[in-house]
Amino acid sequence: MARTTGSHSDITGPRIRDAALRLFARQGYAAVSMRQIAGEVGVQAGALYNYIPDKQSLLVELMRDHMVELLAAVPVDPSDAPLVQLEAFVRFHIGFHHARPDAVFIAYMELRNLDPANFAEIEDLRGRYEAVLERILRDGAEVGAFDVPDPKIATLAVIAMLTGVTTWFRAGGRLSLGDVQDQYWDMVRKSVLA
Amino acid sequence: MARTTGSHSDITGPRIRDAALRLFARQGYAAVSMRQIAGEVGVQAGALYNYIPDKQSLLVELMRDHMVELLAAVPVDPSDAPLVQLEAFVRFHIGFHHARPDAVFIAYMELRNLDPANFAEIEDLRGRYEAVLERILRDGAEVGAFDVPDPKIATLAVIAMLTGVTTWFRAGGRLSLGDVQDQYWDMVRKSVLA
Repeated sequence: MARTTGSHSDITGPRIRDAALRLFARQGYAAVSMRQIAGEVGVQAGALYNYIPDKQSLLVELMRDHMVELLAAVPVDPSDAPLVQLEAFVRFHIGFHHARPDAVFIAYMELRNLDPANFAEIEDLRGRYEAVLERILRDGAEVGAFDVPDPKIATLAVIAMLTGVTTWFRAGGRLSLGDVQDQYWDMVRKSVLA
Repeated sequence: MARTTGSHSDITGPRIRDAALRLFARQGYAAVSMRQIAGEVGVQAGALYNYIPDKQSLLVELMRDHMVELLAAVPVDPSDAPLVQLEAFVRFHIGFHHARPDAVFIAYMELRNLDPANFAEIEDLRGRYEAVLERILRDGAEVGAFDVPDPKIATLAVIAMLTGVTTWFRAGGRLSLGDVQDQYWDMVRKSVLA
């Protein structure tokens, strides 16, 4: 017979992370207490510590999960032409981040609240993601498809542009997500083309 | 003879705003108390209320000052060609925001903590700034200099790209601010050219 604790943990763990994500995004990490997270989940504050040692662990877990999921999902095939890879990256980045506004907000805003070791871990994951785009731009420049004097700078510029969509795009408005992806892809393509 | 209170106020007001800006940026608005701000300035908590009615007023004042200063400083001359105006806007935006990382951070992060009326005021100011760039893009598209299917979207895309510089650029590194401005200008120019 399965242990109750085990199956309970399987449900409660994700509910704690969901509640923390919502509360951190709404109020900011520093202003949220473990007691508040427990209240949102509907468990005693003490019970929270069966699932997570402290608030810092919760923060880094949320950021790590976001980055690991992002890295696993990038639909880029290095055997494709750089322009094809770039289009896949651009459309993916907008869609993935649009679906996770709270995680994006926290990923940028709460870096200041990570302990040094946790900060280093998240920065490393972010660096790996940026390296995907940088490699595409570099490959494209090498074969003469792109004119990108500094692929590292271009990477940061493109990622900031694309992530910005999460701050203003709302489904049901004048434009569909597909329209937005089309227009951003058009701008990114032109910005790097030789 | 000048009133001591008056001249004192002239110095203390800005010092309170500077301290609040630093603390909000470092810890987040919700986590900072008026007492903490007073401590940072070196005055009694009660004395703070001679200068500012509450923490919310301090937040909206910081955001308003930032936007008003930004709007007053845009060095765009509508009689110039759209491409010339666009270059001026791009270089200015990077330079202005680079010099104010805390204000930029707060302008984006603490929108969630503004009361509805204050939020509306700041959104209006931000809209006026975005309208400067949108008008440049629209003018350029009308005279056939730019190919920008949706100037509003292109405005948001360019501003997000440019503001992103504040998250990674540090003076004294591999690139000067001028190098960064050159590269971003090159990308923006290509992204909108017909």
